Amino acid sequence: MDTVSQMRLFMEPRSVAVVGATRQSGSDSFNIVQRLTGHGYKGRVYPVNPRASEILGIKAYPTIGDVPEKVDLAVIPVWERYAVPDLLKQCIDAGIKAVVVVTQGFADGDAEGRKLQDKMLAMARESGTRILGPNSLGVANAFTGLNTSFVPSDMIKVPIGVICQSGLFFQNLRSLNPLGKGIDVANGCDVHFCEALEYFEQDPDTKVILLHVEGLKDGKRFVQTASRVSRKKPIIALKTARTETGARAAQSHTGSLAGSVEVMRGALKQSGVVRASDVEEAEDLVKAFVRLPLMKGRRVGILSISGGAGVMQVDACSDYGLKLARLSPETQAGLREHLPAWMDTTNPLDLWPVGVHSGTSLSETAMACLSKVCPDPNVDGVAYTMGTVFLEEGLRVARSIRELMDTLDKPVCWWSGTGSRVVHEEELEKEGVVIFPSGERAIRALGKLNDYWQFLQESCKASRQSVMTHDR
Amino acid sequence: MDTVSQMRLFMEPRSVAVVGATRQSGSDSFNIVQRLTGHGYKGRVYPVNPRASEILGIKAYPTIGDVPEKVDLAVIPVWERYAVPDLLKQCIDAGIKAVVVVTQGFADGDAEGRKLQDKMLAMARESGTRILGPNSLGVANAFTGLNTSFVPSDMIKVPIGVICQSGLFFQNLRSLNPLGKGIDVANGCDVHFCEALEYFEQDPDTKVILLHVEGLKDGKRFVQTASRVSRKKPIIALKTARTETGARAAQSHTGSLAGSVEVMRGALKQSGVVRASDVEEAEDLVKAFVRLPLMKGRRVGILSISGGAGVMQVDACSDYGLKLARLSPETQAGLREHLPAWMDTTNPLDLWPVGVHSGTSLSETAMACLSKVCPDPNVDGVAYTMGTVFLEEGLRVARSIRELMDTLDKPVCWWSGTGSRVVHEEELEKEGVVIFPSGERAIRALGKLNDYWQFLQESCKASRQSVMTHDR
Repeated sequence: MDTVSQMRLFMEPRSVAVVGATRQSGSDSFNIVQRLTGHGYKGRVYPVNPRASEILGIKAYPTIGDVPEKVDLAVIPVWERYAVPDLLKQCIDAGIKAVVVVTQGFADGDAEGRKLQDKMLAMARESGTRILGPNSLGVANAFTGLNTSFVPSDMIKVPIGVICQSGLFFQNLRSLNPLGKGIDVANGCDVHFCEALEYFEQDPDTKVILLHVEGLKDGKRFVQTASRVSRKKPIIALKTARTETGARAAQSHTGSLAGSVEVMRGALKQSGVVRASDVEEAEDLVKAFVRLPLMKGRRVGILSISGGAGVMQVDACSDYGLKLARLSPETQAGLREHLPAWMDTTNPLDLWPVGVHSGTSLSETAMACLSKVCPDPNVDGVAYTMGTVFLEEGLRVARSIRELMDTLDKPVCWWSGTGSRVVHEEELEKEGVVIFPSGERAIRALGKLNDYWQFLQESCKASRQSVMTHDR
Repeated sequence: MDTVSQMRLFMEPRSVAVVGATRQSGSDSFNIVQRLTGHGYKGRVYPVNPRASEILGIKAYPTIGDVPEKVDLAVIPVWERYAVPDLLKQCIDAGIKAVVVVTQGFADGDAEGRKLQDKMLAMARESGTRILGPNSLGVANAFTGLNTSFVPSDMIKVPIGVICQSGLFFQNLRSLNPLGKGIDVANGCDVHFCEALEYFEQDPDTKVILLHVEGLKDGKRFVQTASRVSRKKPIIALKTARTETGARAAQSHTGSLAGSVEVMRGALKQSGVVRASDVEEAEDLVKAFVRLPLMKGRRVGILSISGGAGVMQVDACSDYGLKLARLSPETQAGLREHLPAWMDTTNPLDLWPVGVHSGTSLSETAMACLSKVCPDPNVDGVAYTMGTVFLEEGLRVARSIRELMDTLDKPVCWWSGTGSRVVHEEELEKEGVVIFPSGERAIRALGKLNDYWQFLQESCKASRQSVMTHDR
């Protein structure tokens, strides 16, 4: 079976067995059968437990051999690590080709655990069965309601594929629920990043891939796969275990070898992977890449209700390799009529004196200025800062920004400043804009939207050149 | 009059005149009289407007000379800059010693504006009247309900004194409302950072000072004042206009000369000022310094529901100059009984397998482990990561952390992970804990709590040495 077909057994199974399902239920029982049936999964679910005849009203079977069909996916969540190889063998004997091992204490534990893990890998290799884990929450798929995690997590049909080595990413990230689809490779004894990337490469539900990496197993193969995939879909990577002590901690967490920081950086950059420096940037970038157009140059226009915030964003442009756009004479002339005589800067543009001078409301002022700055051919992307004291006005601005982005194919990143209400931000985002928690983070996202566009341009050029060389 | 007494006229006036008060009212009228009376200010308020007999039900006077008392503070918010010098003269003639100039278009505008500003400064110097601004929102004081800003802002009696060059800081910061007291020096033609620092140095309502700096005027005097003040109260500084383009933008914003980045860094460091890299870190540090004990060493204990989050925090320790604590043999032995046999790391401590092995709830597991790690003499501060799916359990943990911090005088920084609800965080913080938006930011705050403690130690040592030298 090819890799993608086998990964589909994990991600789109028609039937799932939970081998060693707990009989406990309730919010703190971490019962996988409860999670599996609680998200609307329509496939068949088989609890396996020799001491239960039913679990949560579903008929249970003493062993996986007793289950009346060859299920697509088995999940082994027992807590006793020494029990796992036997249960795995029973799954293999039952002809099952995809097994999630939740149990901990393998390469994430001690030398004995590493030996057990190697033994399971050998069994997998011999039989053609693939293992996800151990030490894994398994898989999640909002599009079918599948979730093998033992902790509650909300899923939403967002076009985001998460590949991680920590259950942290199966929870909601704060500013966006990214769990469209998720694969927790964890210790990654068998299924690893490349298999997961190949699945998402082919998956029509996935537009953006979020990757959490503690350590790579096969750097060369990763670069090869990631380079190909990131030409089709952006891959945002959060590389942790970046330091010597962090690398030691990762060995105890997933048994991962973090590898040299420089080699890793090089590998990710070469692959066109967009690096996030921390969890918060990962959240920002996932949102940005899902909802905003790419930024097709380095020149930023800044419109801000606060001159002080504008200064901070100008600083951030330098930090993230962007330039302050020099507005065209036409745009400058168009803005001029709204400005008091003493005001000589149009970028960054301080909207407050403009509004006062024009005598229009702040949202009207903002829309008038946005409609002049955004279409300027010298502007590749816009940072906009304005609070939303009055929600109705904010919604009008949001709709107008969405329209500008769609027409012009340029990103606008919004910071609502410090005075805004979080609840307003949610309302505004429903109109299709993206609001960032700080002005600097808005600029940082614009920078990454441009980095990825540059990667696409360069790899296009490279393939054109390689075609031309071939033609000769 | 000495500086502090004169600053009290700005911050604790018994009466305020608004010279050029608008007759418009309502939520979008930016009416200062409305703001002044809307926050419970008990002092006398005098609107001055030759075309109104009353404003918002308060008797208005044609000129400041007609107001029946010599007010402590006058605020000039007219939009026409050429009108300001005359109005200022009338205030000086009326014997007023403290004037806020809200009007824009001075050093923040063009050469003509700079000339006008110089003219006003000369008038102030000659008369002994002090000017705050121009281009300033003025002052705010939650303890008396005073607020001269024209934009709505919530104030809370928090022991935080804000000194800024942008109205941005008169709005609520997202995670903490810092507007206990605020002074917007803005263009700073006369009253500047040193006067504001001297006020907060003496102010019993202020425990922590937040400083937003675009440019210093008199570096030497600043270092002298800030060094003295920061020995008594921590000063958190956000320096913007850090880049060449940022510096140019600042000149258009407040007419500030940003100065050399290196000189500025040196000046702030020498003064014991705690640097925040951006608005978000400023928010984090204000919260941390108000509510947490200082960290009296570099050794961190990490307890985390997620092994992956633990790895990220270990990385962050390296980033911010902290060390992973080596737990004492007693602590390790005490933890050992809760750990599965295969688990060999106690720092960072992954709480999930501990809970599973002990068969206790996650909050009980956390409290048991916290009560062992926090008192360890090898631990100077603790980073704790746990979501709050069940609020009641979270509240119990919060109370127990607060008790540990009070008893041990060590900081505990909490990251609630990605799955938590913001509303829960607010509830938990009411119990006196501090929750950070990311694990890395929790560690960064611990680092700064230690940096400031080190500064205090060094300056103590220096003054002891200077006393000893003197004794000889």
